[in-house]
Amino acid sequence: MPTVNPPRGMRDFLPADKARRERVLAVIRERYRAHGFDEIETPVVEDYDRLHAGIGGDNEKLAFAVLKRGLDADAIRAAAEAPAGLSDLGLRYDLTVPLARFYASHRADLPSVFRSIQIAPVWRAERPQKGRYRQFVQCDIDIIGDASARAEAELVVASLDTLDALGLEGGSIRINDRRVLDALLDGFGFSADERPGVLITIDKLDKIGPDGVVAELEGRGVTPTAVAAFGAFLRRPQTLEYLPFGAAQIRKALPDGIADELVGHLVGIGDAVAAARGGGDIPLVFDPFLVRGMGYYTGTIFELAHPSVDYSLGGGGRYDGMIGRFLGQQVPAVGFSIGFERIVDLVAAAEDAGTRALVLVHDRDVPVAELVALKTALIADGARVRLEQRTKNLKPMLERASADGYTAFATVAAGATVDGLEFKPLA
Amino acid sequence: MPTVNPPRGMRDFLPADKARRERVLAVIRERYRAHGFDEIETPVVEDYDRLHAGIGGDNEKLAFAVLKRGLDADAIRAAAEAPAGLSDLGLRYDLTVPLARFYASHRADLPSVFRSIQIAPVWRAERPQKGRYRQFVQCDIDIIGDASARAEAELVVASLDTLDALGLEGGSIRINDRRVLDALLDGFGFSADERPGVLITIDKLDKIGPDGVVAELEGRGVTPTAVAAFGAFLRRPQTLEYLPFGAAQIRKALPDGIADELVGHLVGIGDAVAAARGGGDIPLVFDPFLVRGMGYYTGTIFELAHPSVDYSLGGGGRYDGMIGRFLGQQVPAVGFSIGFERIVDLVAAAEDAGTRALVLVHDRDVPVAELVALKTALIADGARVRLEQRTKNLKPMLERASADGYTAFATVAAGATVDGLEFKPLA
Repeated sequence: MPTVNPPRGMRDFLPADKARRERVLAVIRERYRAHGFDEIETPVVEDYDRLHAGIGGDNEKLAFAVLKRGLDADAIRAAAEAPAGLSDLGLRYDLTVPLARFYASHRADLPSVFRSIQIAPVWRAERPQKGRYRQFVQCDIDIIGDASARAEAELVVASLDTLDALGLEGGSIRINDRRVLDALLDGFGFSADERPGVLITIDKLDKIGPDGVVAELEGRGVTPTAVAAFGAFLRRPQTLEYLPFGAAQIRKALPDGIADELVGHLVGIGDAVAAARGGGDIPLVFDPFLVRGMGYYTGTIFELAHPSVDYSLGGGGRYDGMIGRFLGQQVPAVGFSIGFERIVDLVAAAEDAGTRALVLVHDRDVPVAELVALKTALIADGARVRLEQRTKNLKPMLERASADGYTAFATVAAGATVDGLEFKPLA
Repeated sequence: MPTVNPPRGMRDFLPADKARRERVLAVIRERYRAHGFDEIETPVVEDYDRLHAGIGGDNEKLAFAVLKRGLDADAIRAAAEAPAGLSDLGLRYDLTVPLARFYASHRADLPSVFRSIQIAPVWRAERPQKGRYRQFVQCDIDIIGDASARAEAELVVASLDTLDALGLEGGSIRINDRRVLDALLDGFGFSADERPGVLITIDKLDKIGPDGVVAELEGRGVTPTAVAAFGAFLRRPQTLEYLPFGAAQIRKALPDGIADELVGHLVGIGDAVAAARGGGDIPLVFDPFLVRGMGYYTGTIFELAHPSVDYSLGGGGRYDGMIGRFLGQQVPAVGFSIGFERIVDLVAAAEDAGTRALVLVHDRDVPVAELVALKTALIADGARVRLEQRTKNLKPMLERASADGYTAFATVAAGATVDGLEFKPLA
């Protein structure tokens, strides 16, 4: 008999956890819908070739493949030299590749600017470790068909509003633009070939600091004069002068020579977010060294920060090139993925207030029809009701009910009526 | 470039369909929770061995297998003679096998009578045809740990209440007991070996009628005297006398010699459902020839009928033997699966009343910050808002918005204020 545990790196969710997850998802879904996003769904599996078309980055290597059906012994033997022949489908590793396929398939039935919500699990065969799972839920919003700063502003405003609605007020967005990064690296004298490796190192700036970055770049053997220029810029003396988000702050954080158009796009996002939030500080922070891993980003990139944690709660960016690969026609696109698995751990476990959740503890001799009638009458009156047969020691049973969100209990003897029940609080 | 369609037999859901599916799921989830069921979740994949342990019936053959990772050429060649070596995981084909594993794994953390909700997709490699899909959602409720008629009554009352809440009033339950069927076949003189084949034929009674059933049984070569006795019973003269659900009706539908205990269990379910529904007709119909396909049923079986359709909208039964196979200890269990994919097509597409869903049609020259501020102000006021840039012909755009659930629109010029917007109905 195999183990009764879930497969390696995957999780079962018991009632209390599942209820909290569904509550958080309901808030996210409702808020994103209010902001004009429409939810779609695609199958859990996609064609193997599509998942391995080179746009999934490192995730492609982590994809679970689904075995082709009806393979005979000869076909299996032939696949020994070409293992891709064993699979025609695979489990999706993100929601962006399926979205691009969906858009290419259904474009004629979608608004010209399409704002999508996707809330669904993805699978990656990562080495299991604390906080990293082989099946986890992603919550993505994407805007396809709008190249303007309005798209980024709508994503940012919707995501911060959702975070507020979850009781996580005070979130902010670190923002950058891949083209700013490219211009910056060009300016220091790195070659285009050196960029991907240099970005991997820069991505560690928060962790290893300027000296660590310079040391790692020297180890990489990239253009030494570029490393020196970059190091000097990182270590330049800075006055700790507070500047609100805007052109002045962005210019101050960059060397000279970054195009006005790039700065203008970022400022446009900031202006729109400021207008939407109705004054006060703009919850945006320009970070010229924000990298984001995915290779497909082409413009704005952002990450969601919250004062309660030192890791990001989500992120996204512009990927104007990807949809075009499926469609044969360029279409601008920008997306934001809220880190559901991280956020759900931060949200209080409070049961929906207002619902009466009652446990009826009954003696063994109460007739079934009486019990079911009592239960149904309380449900019709708006309550949530669990029946429990009396045990010698009530305490463990009542504690479990409390953990599952029940708030009061009454004992039931034969002949009891709804009006005669006396409820006592559980906690 | 591969096709942009979803994989064979699987579906994409566009916004209007997805919104309707989520609304129906929210009602099902809320009603089942009110009736004291608690939602759980298991991973989409299970160990290959568990999915192929002989309890999934015909569905085991339809399971999609997940390719083992890290297979080298030698391992693949070796698998030519033993293809099970290619897979260690598979996509679940139902929610009952995962529930049995879940219960065995987490029993200590669950109430002694555990009422579970599972709402999740399953996969079967069926030949695609109208209304049959390779990925579809199942909505199961199960009660583990209660052998009494109370368990069946709670399932029936909760399921009918849910159907009512979806606007599908007037549902009823066809009910039978596998042990009644067994006793009936024994009484006619069929041998235990002949039972499975005879049940397959009886399952077609609605479609091919008594003569068709007798002809097919004769063709099967089962005990001829049993076929003759069964045929005589099927064609016996019956008075069209109305009897409400209860012992009298059940006895009348059966030959003599069925044990009182079996009839008593069915009557107990009826009494409890009657008490819960508070008088009027009991929405139960005893059908001694109701079979239900799954081999694991051991007692009560039922199907959900509705006057608007001639197919069943769900069904279930008792499977007291299955949990014990995982646990090494007998535990009674009974489940009911509501036919989500069928029900969702019957439910009206009405948007949640009460939500204002507004389209802002703006000129090209309205500044991004103004637009985002207007949108956000309306959202803060409780509305759902979509921005659309003005097109030459507004009609197709407004029709699409209406299909997506939007109810009113206003045009926006530069300098517009929330108070100055004039909304017109969309439909």
